[in-house]
Amino acid sequence: MRHIRDSGEHIGVGRAMHDVLLDLFPICRSITGDGVRATLRALQKRIPLTIQEVPSGTQVFDWTVPLEWNIHDAYIKDLNGHRIIDFQKSNLHVVNYSHPINRRISLDELKNHLHSLPEHPTWIPYRTSYYKDSWGFCLSHNELQNLKDAEYDVRIDASLSKGSLSYGEFFVPGQVRDEVLFSTHVCHPSLCNDNLSGIVVTTFLAEWVLSKPRRYSYRFLFVPGTIGSITWLSQNRGQTSHIKHGLVLTGVGDPGPFTYKRSRRGDSEIDRIMANLLRHSGSPHNIVEFIPYGYDERQYCSPGFNLPVGCFSRTPHSQYPEYHTSGDSVEFVKAESLEESLEQCRTAVETLERNRVYLNRNPHCEPQLGKRGLYRGIGGQAGEKSMEMALLWVLNLSDGSHSLLEIAERADIRFEVLAAAAEKLMEHALLSPAQ
Amino acid sequence: MRHIRDSGEHIGVGRAMHDVLLDLFPICRSITGDGVRATLRALQKRIPLTIQEVPSGTQVFDWTVPLEWNIHDAYIKDLNGHRIIDFQKSNLHVVNYSHPINRRISLDELKNHLHSLPEHPTWIPYRTSYYKDSWGFCLSHNELQNLKDAEYDVRIDASLSKGSLSYGEFFVPGQVRDEVLFSTHVCHPSLCNDNLSGIVVTTFLAEWVLSKPRRYSYRFLFVPGTIGSITWLSQNRGQTSHIKHGLVLTGVGDPGPFTYKRSRRGDSEIDRIMANLLRHSGSPHNIVEFIPYGYDERQYCSPGFNLPVGCFSRTPHSQYPEYHTSGDSVEFVKAESLEESLEQCRTAVETLERNRVYLNRNPHCEPQLGKRGLYRGIGGQAGEKSMEMALLWVLNLSDGSHSLLEIAERADIRFEVLAAAAEKLMEHALLSPAQ
Amino acid sequence: MRHIRDSGEHIGVGRAMHDVLLDLFPICRSITGDGVRATLRALQKRIPLTIQEVPSGTQVFDWTVPLEWNIHDAYIKDLNGHRIIDFQKSNLHVVNYSHPINRRISLDELKNHLHSLPEHPTWIPYRTSYYKDSWGFCLSHNELQNLKDAEYDVRIDASLSKGSLSYGEFFVPGQVRDEVLFSTHVCHPSLCNDNLSGIVVTTFLAEWVLSKPRRYSYRFLFVPGTIGSITWLSQNRGQTSHIKHGLVLTGVGDPGPFTYKRSRRGDSEIDRIMANLLRHSGSPHNIVEFIPYGYDERQYCSPGFNLPVGCFSRTPHSQYPEYHTSGDSVEFVKAESLEESLEQCRTAVETLERNRVYLNRNPHCEPQLGKRGLYRGIGGQAGEKSMEMALLWVLNLSDGSHSLLEIAERADIRFEVLAAAAEKLMEHALLSPAQ
Repeated sequence: MRHIRDSGEHIGVGRAMHDVLLDLFPICRSITGDGVRATLRALQKRIPLTIQEVPSGTQVFDWTVPLEWNIHDAYIKDLNGHRIIDFQKSNLHVVNYSHPINRRISLDELKNHLHSLPEHPTWIPYRTSYYKDSWGFCLSHNELQNLKDAEYDVRIDASLSKGSLSYGEFFVPGQVRDEVLFSTHVCHPSLCNDNLSGIVVTTFLAEWVLSKPRRYSYRFLFVPGTIGSITWLSQNRGQTSHIKHGLVLTGVGDPGPFTYKRSRRGDSEIDRIMANLLRHSGSPHNIVEFIPYGYDERQYCSPGFNLPVGCFSRTPHSQYPEYHTSGDSVEFVKAESLEESLEQCRTAVETLERNRVYLNRNPHCEPQLGKRGLYRGIGGQAGEKSMEMALLWVLNLSDGSHSLLEIAERADIRFEVLAAAAEKLMEHALLSPAQ
Repeated sequence: MRHIRDSGEHIGVGRAMHDVLLDLFPICRSITGDGVRATLRALQKRIPLTIQEVPSGTQVFDWTVPLEWNIHDAYIKDLNGHRIIDFQKSNLHVVNYSHPINRRISLDELKNHLHSLPEHPTWIPYRTSYYKDSWGFCLSHNELQNLKDAEYDVRIDASLSKGSLSYGEFFVPGQVRDEVLFSTHVCHPSLCNDNLSGIVVTTFLAEWVLSKPRRYSYRFLFVPGTIGSITWLSQNRGQTSHIKHGLVLTGVGDPGPFTYKRSRRGDSEIDRIMANLLRHSGSPHNIVEFIPYGYDERQYCSPGFNLPVGCFSRTPHSQYPEYHTSGDSVEFVKAESLEESLEQCRTAVETLERNRVYLNRNPHCEPQLGKRGLYRGIGGQAGEKSMEMALLWVLNLSDGSHSLLEIAERADIRFEVLAAAAEKLMEHALLSPAQ
Repeated sequence: MRHIRDSGEHIGVGRAMHDVLLDLFPICRSITGDGVRATLRALQKRIPLTIQEVPSGTQVFDWTVPLEWNIHDAYIKDLNGHRIIDFQKSNLHVVNYSHPINRRISLDELKNHLHSLPEHPTWIPYRTSYYKDSWGFCLSHNELQNLKDAEYDVRIDASLSKGSLSYGEFFVPGQVRDEVLFSTHVCHPSLCNDNLSGIVVTTFLAEWVLSKPRRYSYRFLFVPGTIGSITWLSQNRGQTSHIKHGLVLTGVGDPGPFTYKRSRRGDSEIDRIMANLLRHSGSPHNIVEFIPYGYDERQYCSPGFNLPVGCFSRTPHSQYPEYHTSGDSVEFVKAESLEESLEQCRTAVETLERNRVYLNRNPHCEPQLGKRGLYRGIGGQAGEKSMEMALLWVLNLSDGSHSLLEIAERADIRFEVLAAAAEKLMEHALLSPAQ
């Protein structure tokens, strides 16, 4: 990251990411509907993702793809015809998946349908009612307290009808069929860290992965939360065994420390890689154990799949006050934070690509490194040099049962240094990949 | 325990336990003889235990059932005929298993047969000589120092003759043949924490176990220490494989912290249950590793058996000054302590009964809990609810290889909450017992 | 050690060791040549070791036995004919394996061939150039700064020619073919801790091992560093499977704390023994993990061999300023330190010899120790006695899967006490060796 911060080009990357986020911000997304489609189409300008449509009513494991929800307008008007609460000003004002309504209503009744945050009186909360037939408005607590008339005209001009659930998918074939999954959710309306930051980082990561040939295949999913990953898993059940590593990306734009939540397996390769790279990142970070609550890792890590998929974020959901409120704004997400998160994901990909098990082809005693120019000529000086140590570690532990990452952990040497040592040894035919 | 302390009925339980202890206190028990029989017969008023008799001379592994010892009277008289030391006042005065004696003896010779505790000059020590042909008296150090005459008349009116070793056994069949063993020793004379507290808690526990149908079978043993458990194991060698869990109960009446000593296996289910319940007990406690010294767990955990039997007590033996002295009196044992110990044992039984391995019947992705009324309707609010988390944990880890207790430990949720969650999921056909 | 320090005879051992070191000090050793031969011949006065000769040019794995190097004289003279730097005063003055030279040379050119230690201006460094065709002198920094003439006469009267590599080997057959390896290097010129201390301790240890019959066979190697152990392994490749335990001995004469560096396996029996005995030594010590840098354990622990060979030293190489300088003098090594190191090695041998897996022949319940006189007669006293506890531990864990050392670690009892308990139990036919 140090290098990147110094580079005008790269500061540009963070800025470009934030610009994409600004474009996507006004769209009213939900778990179905035109908002998701508009979002995915906007991403197609950068990566050639496919938009999949799954009809309402489709059974996906224990769930059913719901009716499609679209909204055009909504308001609460006083009897003078003034829009007191106006969907056109913030799409958070409507409880997501509210059914249509259009009538005059008493304040008392209306209050049963209003949500506010007394502890943050200027923020609008974000609420959903996907699977409960209901309607409602969200508003700031100050706005709520200003409602004093006896009656209001309430309208939600929305439709709930047969349609489909939309998601985006982008697959990059590599040398091997084994694949790395990156999944992000696309169902939140005008909220930035949760979830536009994940959409943007995943998109830029996909663009970079595509930029050169890779050993692994890569799959990028842009799915509505919960129902979207369940739908994908249901429709691709036979293919999940190809997923050898994966990350859910979410909440990667705030300025907080990095957080890696381990997969259910707890010690899969991606778990060890993320722990290793964060430990060497020089940045504050937390590694947390898997719990069956959070984002779509809940589905990927359900016991029937138990995929090695962790979750990478910055401040965990619900641990920042702006979470699921209008406080999660375009100002809350920083260009630099987006870029740092992208960089960690790139390092994860590079580590996955380079992390292999090798065989020392000269396993009986050390090979004579000096005659190959890999070791100092004059002996007797105290102390070791770091590249020499990396060479010795790779040789000593490359017995077919230690990956470079495991050697890096045991030697307490940065993965990059060990990987460079392995490459030098390969050049000198002292090392070869173990199957 | 909190609830129990508030309940008049339950305070009554502790009081009732202490009353039984008072009844049993005066009896002069030993490893054989009428004292043990009288004790077991008194317990038959509460539970239908069987009294077994094993003849003197019976070979039990490397040991032999000894001659039966009975005592009627004993004293040291001065030459004026005054009983200076009187068995009628405390049965601790006679070294247990002393052979009979009746003669005049010089103070010098007598002193070779006297035991006192200089550091606690008012307490009578408790000493035994089961396997060494000997005799002796125990007395307070103050009494010892008052012996100033040249000669005394010494009498121990005891008999050592062919008879039998007596022990009590109570078996409660359950749905399955696998059994849970509770074992307590019954060989100490007028000492309260060691061992009347164990006898009383085991008796009340047996009564409660009998009060409703159980999954496991339960076996309660009231045996003389060492020789009694060896005798039982010798005579029931073929049946020990049914013992899947067990506890030796002893020293459970003093006001000290709970102590659980692990079985030799160290991580058997009973070990993990006791550690879990003590951790959540809110009470001070210690978990200690197995050592081959202590009570009858020494025999149950000998390498030829290696049964999963731990030892539950309060302050460990020999770590309180009253241990094996007349200081271990009816006042030293508290009604409340007895009741708390009983309550921990009941919790252990309930946890054993409910601790099963389940299978999530909908293992691919989460089931839709909301449509079953098991999940909040309105989404978007930060934070999880504890029952929802318990449901998610049970579903996520019920893959046939985690017991509820293991899930409780990983989730750091109280076992009771997880067990309730499992029951809810069973009601909704989302979970079934594995096997 | 306490006993030994009090004993005039044993103080004598340390003194005798230091005397041998004084004899060996002046010899100019290298990885080949007459210095090594003279050293090995001197050791033959104490132990009947065999001197092996391996011809120059012999291929040993990835290496080749080099030309033999011998040196007779060397100096730097000023133009007045005064020897400014004189090999006769210290053999450290010549870079080891320098090729011959004899010419007048400018100070500027000469300086490219000079090595000094500015931070220790009175010490001569030790440098080698075994595998790079070169020459050079080592001198104190003060001497370097006094070189002010424009030209000097430089001579190194050395030869590099076909010959052989010499090493010493001493094999002591035991009851079993399994062997214990002790290896020390013999290639350093007038340096004391590194490596004369290792030579001396290994020699005295071999003498003591030979002094009585042993269960294991023992092999003692006195080899030039790196190329010597590689040569031995190359020429004895088929026999290495007999090596069940091993130690490289080096740097065992300074007054610093003991250091044990684990084998690559990390938990082999020798690793556990050394950790155990140092923990109970009462001396300051460090246990460090294996790294593939250090002494000949690098070769023994190369992945193709992966032998259970650790490294025993006092202050680790390069962690004391005298390392590889003239400061590593006969005063730096202490008689007492040599003797303490020898004593630790003897204890390691004795522990290896006695560390066996036993079977409790009476595994069902405890045997009755009292009737065999192994247990106190009068019961009831608080507390256990250490020999009784040792007996109980050995009985409880001798199930065929725990060695005495493992029992010692679990019981936290000194190995010697447990081994004595095992012997008592053997006498009473309560224990027998497994297999």
